[in-house]
Amino acid sequence: MTTTILKGVIAYAITPFDRNEQLDVPLFRKLVERLVTSGAHAIAPLGSTGVLPYLTDEEKEAVTEATLQQVAGRVPTLVGVSNLTTERTIYHAKFAEKAGASAVMIIPMSYWKLTDDEIVAHYDAVASRINIPIMAYNNPATGGVDMSASLLKRLLEIPNVTMIKESTGDVQRMHYLRRELGEEVAFYNGSNPLALAAFAAGATGWCTAAPNLIPTLNTALFEAVTDGNYSNARSLFYQQVDLLKFIVATGLPRAIKAGLELLGQEAGELRSPLKPLTANERKVLQDILSTIKNQ
Amino acid sequence: MTTTILKGVIAYAITPFDRNEQLDVPLFRKLVERLVTSGAHAIAPLGSTGVLPYLTDEEKEAVTEATLQQVAGRVPTLVGVSNLTTERTIYHAKFAEKAGASAVMIIPMSYWKLTDDEIVAHYDAVASRINIPIMAYNNPATGGVDMSASLLKRLLEIPNVTMIKESTGDVQRMHYLRRELGEEVAFYNGSNPLALAAFAAGATGWCTAAPNLIPTLNTALFEAVTDGNYSNARSLFYQQVDLLKFIVATGLPRAIKAGLELLGQEAGELRSPLKPLTANERKVLQDILSTIKNQ
Amino acid sequence: MTTTILKGVIAYAITPFDRNEQLDVPLFRKLVERLVTSGAHAIAPLGSTGVLPYLTDEEKEAVTEATLQQVAGRVPTLVGVSNLTTERTIYHAKFAEKAGASAVMIIPMSYWKLTDDEIVAHYDAVASRINIPIMAYNNPATGGVDMSASLLKRLLEIPNVTMIKESTGDVQRMHYLRRELGEEVAFYNGSNPLALAAFAAGATGWCTAAPNLIPTLNTALFEAVTDGNYSNARSLFYQQVDLLKFIVATGLPRAIKAGLELLGQEAGELRSPLKPLTANERKVLQDILSTIKNQ
Amino acid sequence: MTTTILKGVIAYAITPFDRNEQLDVPLFRKLVERLVTSGAHAIAPLGSTGVLPYLTDEEKEAVTEATLQQVAGRVPTLVGVSNLTTERTIYHAKFAEKAGASAVMIIPMSYWKLTDDEIVAHYDAVASRINIPIMAYNNPATGGVDMSASLLKRLLEIPNVTMIKESTGDVQRMHYLRRELGEEVAFYNGSNPLALAAFAAGATGWCTAAPNLIPTLNTALFEAVTDGNYSNARSLFYQQVDLLKFIVATGLPRAIKAGLELLGQEAGELRSPLKPLTANERKVLQDILSTIKNQ
Repeated sequence: MTTTILKGVIAYAITPFDRNEQLDVPLFRKLVERLVTSGAHAIAPLGSTGVLPYLTDEEKEAVTEATLQQVAGRVPTLVGVSNLTTERTIYHAKFAEKAGASAVMIIPMSYWKLTDDEIVAHYDAVASRINIPIMAYNNPATGGVDMSASLLKRLLEIPNVTMIKESTGDVQRMHYLRRELGEEVAFYNGSNPLALAAFAAGATGWCTAAPNLIPTLNTALFEAVTDGNYSNARSLFYQQVDLLKFIVATGLPRAIKAGLELLGQEAGELRSPLKPLTANERKVLQDILSTIKNQ
Repeated sequence: MTTTILKGVIAYAITPFDRNEQLDVPLFRKLVERLVTSGAHAIAPLGSTGVLPYLTDEEKEAVTEATLQQVAGRVPTLVGVSNLTTERTIYHAKFAEKAGASAVMIIPMSYWKLTDDEIVAHYDAVASRINIPIMAYNNPATGGVDMSASLLKRLLEIPNVTMIKESTGDVQRMHYLRRELGEEVAFYNGSNPLALAAFAAGATGWCTAAPNLIPTLNTALFEAVTDGNYSNARSLFYQQVDLLKFIVATGLPRAIKAGLELLGQEAGELRSPLKPLTANERKVLQDILSTIKNQ
Repeated sequence: MTTTILKGVIAYAITPFDRNEQLDVPLFRKLVERLVTSGAHAIAPLGSTGVLPYLTDEEKEAVTEATLQQVAGRVPTLVGVSNLTTERTIYHAKFAEKAGASAVMIIPMSYWKLTDDEIVAHYDAVASRINIPIMAYNNPATGGVDMSASLLKRLLEIPNVTMIKESTGDVQRMHYLRRELGEEVAFYNGSNPLALAAFAAGATGWCTAAPNLIPTLNTALFEAVTDGNYSNARSLFYQQVDLLKFIVATGLPRAIKAGLELLGQEAGELRSPLKPLTANERKVLQDILSTIKNQ
Repeated sequence: MTTTILKGVIAYAITPFDRNEQLDVPLFRKLVERLVTSGAHAIAPLGSTGVLPYLTDEEKEAVTEATLQQVAGRVPTLVGVSNLTTERTIYHAKFAEKAGASAVMIIPMSYWKLTDDEIVAHYDAVASRINIPIMAYNNPATGGVDMSASLLKRLLEIPNVTMIKESTGDVQRMHYLRRELGEEVAFYNGSNPLALAAFAAGATGWCTAAPNLIPTLNTALFEAVTDGNYSNARSLFYQQVDLLKFIVATGLPRAIKAGLELLGQEAGELRSPLKPLTANERKVLQDILSTIKNQ
């Protein structure tokens, strides 16, 4: 097992619904295909972008299978299998492994704030049941728990927990992780507006929904960083930072759907209570996309 | 429809599991009976205390039916029907009404932070499908959304949204609600450590899991307030405030289970990833309960 | 030495300036006289309301002397002597004692966040040089340091530190103080919007600039609480809460000056960089005062 | 007037006192000399590091003159002239200009939170009285006000406000400033732990007290960034990040004094209430310095 199975731009797919708010698998496959062919270094279904918590068990399985079939090994896949209960998390992790996922991502979702021991037991229970790598994901804003560096250290002692995704939006946290966890641990940035700072801090990859809208800018930023050309990286970052901030501020599923439509790509419907961007929000997004196009 | 269907001490039930982490309905009914006979003014299943988000649809239905059968009209019931999707919230609200619930409680659960319009549409969609009153519940810590007073005002324009439960733990918020929403709106305090301040501010009721452990102190506080005896209310509050803070700090399901066991009452198991209190936490709880007993 | 030297409504005076931004002592004395004759239970110059940090040493001395001369023993006085350095704090505390102050108030002002040991040494150094009681004042928003209950406990071991003023605006803090410090310690509420909740929690007094504008409502609230008439207290509180929130939100010196002028009372000028309320803010204040008058 | 008068590592001097807590000018000059000869690109007296708010007017003047005499034009100087009142800020800004300062730094110190209009009027009043450039400094943690990008934009319309120092520790703020204010505005990073991320974002300089202890690492980081060698910059940053975090966490004046002593350099006394590092803190600092030395 290697920790470098994933690097660069890890693209998050949205989950589209039809007019009856039912899962639209054919459209989902089209959107995944678009991500692969536009240069994403890995594909990640069933994240926050993919409205994982709003799906039934059956829908999660259908999305997982559709992803693996469509990607067909061209790039690695990272499947989200987070669930409130340990039992359901194990169930979906096993399903993803069987379907052929390269790795799974797990955030300790919590309605009740979990203790460190509860979180370790949760990961341990899942990890012991699968053989593919696990990315532990820290995002207090959506998961409700803020995992400390010492807790992440404990999680990394579990053999197949090999990657850390950090989305607090605090670059000092990344510095601390790298100092405490060592350079050999792969850490990934999940905060879009921190893309430049995280790469400067040594992040292995960038987990982002932005490649649905601006794939070329995203991969170019990674390449500039890899080439050590920070002047170019900075320029590329400032070209895309307004979009990165917008999609975070308005919510990834809503913003990506609207952006796809503005780019002429069908994107399906949202599932209630999520609603489309307002006319004003849509106008702001259009302006941002036009500015990027004309740069 | 009257807004005063609920007042005083509204007692939240835990949801007990057996050794295989399966729902234990007979034990649940015993625990509900205990709450009714010890003087609670209303019974509320399927709240945070009742680990609502960790249950399957079938389990939620079983708990709802067991509550209504056990309470058998002796006091009003307030059934939690919150769900991430609007469709599932409607489903459970209709189920609760049909089962005989006096009212339902709905928190706008969100993985993605909802806009005000999305929240209003969510409540509206549910409210139009049932005829019993709805308590709108604001608790950013567990629900992820902090509903402003102006949003709550909009919700109260929906005919059967007649009650507000506020759990931010900020007494100024209650003052503001009362000023903005008017004295005729029933507001309920869901923050245990604010029990005294909220009654002083004019709260109609107190939503709390504490009656599982100290029912007499809880109802005595309400009665002292109702009698206008604040000197006595203050004394009663200071007798129980350590317990109120403890159960919030350690998490209601974990703390109530441990407290029941310390009082000699079987309480079942938790569902993973939730784990029992540590030995140290349990010792602190025992000391608090002993101090209360000896007062 | 008794801890109950101060109770009820402790009225904070503003410090007025002339058109050249120089201290206006005759006008200051008029404003103090107004507070005494309108029923305040104690007078407190050189607080935040009195723009203490914007005054020179000589101006602080002049204000102290003017207060003592004007009050002339009719009610107790509480003089603010806080300063960034320990040496200057001692200097002004000794000056206040010699001038006849009943007690002094000290907030651990800090540009650099002080450690607990630094704060204890600071209070200890001042306390050992004077014989009048000290009120330790906790207000992180203006002082920059948030003193924990355990630190306040240490301060109370210093013989003449006998009173605690708490302005965090968190009623749970007051509950904690009372539990931890015991009922015999006098604690004072410095957060205007918490006036009702703090009295319900057992506060001995209320430190407030509001008596400059609505003295009758302020003292009536204290009397209703003292009489145990919480229904009346609640009604009185809700009559004044909008004003209490407004003067905090816009800044006490600016708001009190404008309010005095709206009531027909000369109030002098502010010292730069502080500027008068904007026309819009002034209009809001006028509406609030009119509503109060017509109640 | 040019905005690039200052760039690179801007070194902040501490203000040493003798055993009677009186200003020690000869020692101050030695410490300034040390900063100049060890490679700092500019010298900044009377900052937070130099305990500006704890000094009398006369002491501020003595420190200003001593700095200019000692530096003697070898590098630019940036003199802190912040004061609570506008009148005193003007006074010290004029003094600094007359003494020969290259530029002055002004933070809108506030006991009362200032409005945007009050802050603009404050800077405007000072700027109109001097002819040297002003660095506007945003640091809510010590200044009490968080200046928005739109406010900073207004300040930059004042002709000689040409530089922005940002110390919120939030790299996204820097991105925003650069986007909103344009590339031609020089912005400076005042948050030590953000040194790498800020340079990656395009900061012109780094305002830091660290050159008192590790001047070579500080300037090497700037040079690696200037050379576009981010791999080296990252390595240099991770070598010093523990020290950068330590001096911020324990307070710059206390930490720098202790560090100088550990390096064998006399550093004088602190002024009360500030006290030396505890034995434990000192031990941690010693370990950090040893690790750096052995790298």
